[in-house]
Amino acid sequence: MVDILHRVGITAPPEKVYEALTTVEGLAAWWTTDTSGNGEDVLQFRFGDLGGFDMKVLDLRPDTRVLWEVVDGPAEWIGTTVSFELTQEGAWTVLMFAHAGWREPVEFMNHCSTKWAIFLMSLKSLVETGSGAPHPRDVQISNWH
Amino acid sequence: MVDILHRVGITAPPEKVYEALTTVEGLAAWWTTDTSGNGEDVLQFRFGDLGGFDMKVLDLRPDTRVLWEVVDGPAEWIGTTVSFELTQEGAWTVLMFAHAGWREPVEFMNHCSTKWAIFLMSLKSLVETGSGAPHPRDVQISNWH
Repeated sequence: MVDILHRVGITAPPEKVYEALTTVEGLAAWWTTDTSGNGEDVLQFRFGDLGGFDMKVLDLRPDTRVLWEVVDGPAEWIGTTVSFELTQEGAWTVLMFAHAGWREPVEFMNHCSTKWAIFLMSLKSLVETGSGAPHPRDVQISNWH
Repeated sequence: MVDILHRVGITAPPEKVYEALTTVEGLAAWWTTDTSGNGEDVLQFRFGDLGGFDMKVLDLRPDTRVLWEVVDGPAEWIGTTVSFELTQEGAWTVLMFAHAGWREPVEFMNHCSTKWAIFLMSLKSLVETGSGAPHPRDVQISNWH
């Protein structure tokens, strides 16, 4: 079992970051514009021809923690978990990210690791400036998009 | 033992990417402007007050592979390896990156994972456009810079 790990700091209160992680409006503004669900049960994220993911919301602790389980999507993702842990450090909200439980470190995992970093920077930008770069205007990192 | 993995694609021939990974001039243009060494023995990378790393070059396969071992720097980095594997896929050079052999998934590893993604995007930009974003003009991701 291998994990993708990231850490970003955002100059905004935890509640602002939590909002961007737990509302369809927020998620659509940094990850993919094609997001649906009610924010508390199963969320659907779609990326056009590239497919998408369904996330079951396993845990929500206001301003502190979001935990999803991937219930549909690419075979490598199903059963993995995605977590966001928030802590306040002075003027910063520190976001610790993990996409955990990959069965094998396949090439697609490398791709997803880099892509998650790019999307977390999109989240940071959204919360700090009001403007993110969600799909389909996300930053392209390779021939896999 | 846990690893940081990334994958980026660069629209340039492998030899251009290899050059940016194996010359002091190239490395200084995407990772840190304060790079020294001869590209073939031990390389010194410095980041001002944030410290730096000494990398022993363990393997160089032209246009295909670069492997370093960290011989000095933060305790968590010493003894870890950093590798860049290049393959050509049509108009793209695909770069598979691994910073391998971390003893524990400490918070600093999360930070380094995100920061490596940012620096690999700097490398991509350098090779594709002639302009990267090395330290000290690197993209800040958090309170840890």
